[in-house]
Amino acid sequence: MSENRTEIADLGEFGLIKRVTKTFELNNKSSVLGIGDDAAVIRSEQKTQVVSTDLLVEGVHFDLAYVPLQHLGFKAVAVNVSDVAAMNAIPKQITVSIALSNRFSVEAVEALYAGIKSACAEYKVDLIGGDTSASNAGLVVSITIIGEVGEQDLVRRKGCSKGDIVCATGDFGAAYLGLQVLAREKEVYKTNPDMQPKLEEYQYLIERQLKPKARMDIVHELKERAIVPTSMIDVSDGLGSEVLHLEEENGHGLVVYEDKIPYEKETYETAVEFGVDPITCAMNGGEDYELLFTINQKDHDALKNVADISFIGYVGEANAKSKLVTRGGNVVEIEAQGWNHLKK
Amino acid sequence: MSENRTEIADLGEFGLIKRVTKTFELNNKSSVLGIGDDAAVIRSEQKTQVVSTDLLVEGVHFDLAYVPLQHLGFKAVAVNVSDVAAMNAIPKQITVSIALSNRFSVEAVEALYAGIKSACAEYKVDLIGGDTSASNAGLVVSITIIGEVGEQDLVRRKGCSKGDIVCATGDFGAAYLGLQVLAREKEVYKTNPDMQPKLEEYQYLIERQLKPKARMDIVHELKERAIVPTSMIDVSDGLGSEVLHLEEENGHGLVVYEDKIPYEKETYETAVEFGVDPITCAMNGGEDYELLFTINQKDHDALKNVADISFIGYVGEANAKSKLVTRGGNVVEIEAQGWNHLKK
Repeated sequence: MSENRTEIADLGEFGLIKRVTKTFELNNKSSVLGIGDDAAVIRSEQKTQVVSTDLLVEGVHFDLAYVPLQHLGFKAVAVNVSDVAAMNAIPKQITVSIALSNRFSVEAVEALYAGIKSACAEYKVDLIGGDTSASNAGLVVSITIIGEVGEQDLVRRKGCSKGDIVCATGDFGAAYLGLQVLAREKEVYKTNPDMQPKLEEYQYLIERQLKPKARMDIVHELKERAIVPTSMIDVSDGLGSEVLHLEEENGHGLVVYEDKIPYEKETYETAVEFGVDPITCAMNGGEDYELLFTINQKDHDALKNVADISFIGYVGEANAKSKLVTRGGNVVEIEAQGWNHLKK
Repeated sequence: MSENRTEIADLGEFGLIKRVTKTFELNNKSSVLGIGDDAAVIRSEQKTQVVSTDLLVEGVHFDLAYVPLQHLGFKAVAVNVSDVAAMNAIPKQITVSIALSNRFSVEAVEALYAGIKSACAEYKVDLIGGDTSASNAGLVVSITIIGEVGEQDLVRRKGCSKGDIVCATGDFGAAYLGLQVLAREKEVYKTNPDMQPKLEEYQYLIERQLKPKARMDIVHELKERAIVPTSMIDVSDGLGSEVLHLEEENGHGLVVYEDKIPYEKETYETAVEFGVDPITCAMNGGEDYELLFTINQKDHDALKNVADISFIGYVGEANAKSKLVTRGGNVVEIEAQGWNHLKK
């Protein structure tokens, strides 16, 4: 944080909004009017739009002891973009509302919005509106995103059939382990503030936790190859939880092979270091923001050489439970143990 | 609140969302897919849409000591509809995100959503999505609304010219005084819990505070008469603050006549009881959720018999300050003293 500290109270709500959003521009053709009226105005280029919203709450979704505000701003946008990607749609506009207490300075809010701006640039999204409020407790960030999609390209969770191939992008388990590393180093620091946190060797994991990327690249890859998945979901709560969502929506169990689930080497090594099975991190870890989708078998060849897409299983029988085939050849039922902030 | 208390932790996030949203239906043609996928899907009937968002924070925007959750749910939707009305648009969809601590029961959340549902029915809006989170502190409600409007019907804050007539709907100052009454009775109750709160004689004021109505009726009245205001804003922060917003956007001062500003008798009497000038409640009170708009003089006759529209002044000279002409004939500059939660 900067050495300068401007109190939010000196600017007021309107002044704060003006200051932190003044460098944002509208770049999408469909963004007609942004911040500054009773509502924003959009004129969509596609008839079909998708809308999603996410709420991030301090102390629940993030700990400012190790999450820089700029990263938080980026991540808050990226997780929303990820929901749009999961519909095979193109993100276009966001609104950002924040509630914050007076322990935040104007410079802190500027850092948050710098991250938001960086994500807007990365994903070609326009900030068109929002609200700002005081808060008696911590920081709350609420983002709503609007995306566009051709009617024929829209992909839902529901739609796959028996025999479809189950695909996953990227790798799994890293974000969860990144969080474990950050939490451990925070404890070390609390015990002995003179200790330097050991973070260098965990860079990949930490970046996956602090600054996840939404897989818009995959949406574009699919479009270029004229492939429309039969079902799709983004992996925010762990691969296991998302497999079960697809099962529930489609009434078919999915069969997933443990040895096909992609990890990074660092994920594997750190899992071992923490004494957990890497497969547990992948299945139950969460926050990977990868895409899990199914394709018709005829589309296999067109995707087989795309870097970062793995074929991890297939859609099984109707009314069957989803199963994991372990490296040892055992077949175990997949159970939901994903993130659930509200569950005890 | 009901005697039954179900803990949110017993249901978890997905269970809670299912339970409180199960009775919501999609009624608008443009609402294609609601809650339950990565994003909602809409197919707008109009090319032009408006988007607005509002954040309500416990302890800042509402005090649950005197705001029933059902009213809060209604109001949270209504204030968003009011923003859509201010663009002369028709509200169609909302997303609702909430963060709440474990002091709230499932039944409390159901009461909140009963109010949201009642407002959805009143304003013909579909709930299409949302997010639910734990919170370490109080309740936060974040709503985003999407509306539709014909391109020719869209009204912005900017657009009026010198000589246009300034119009206001309904009456002013009541919601502010309703809040004063509720706060006073809360203090009385804290001092002596055996005292019955005296609320009967302030019913209108309290209803204006707890359950404000968005003026969609006026949007429809205007449409029936084929009148498009030259500028419009909703009155959330006090008439004075909104007059200054129109001045700033248009570069013209507005001239408003004190004796043309509509009050209810109860507002006048309660203002006197509290020792404040009724004009102060109207100009600086806030939360009236009426519409302030300007029309071309040629449209005067078509609107003069519409109940609930008052002509309160005119658009003055370019680069002039906005002024209030008092009952006594004095001319005073209008200053911003509206609600500003973040300003000290």
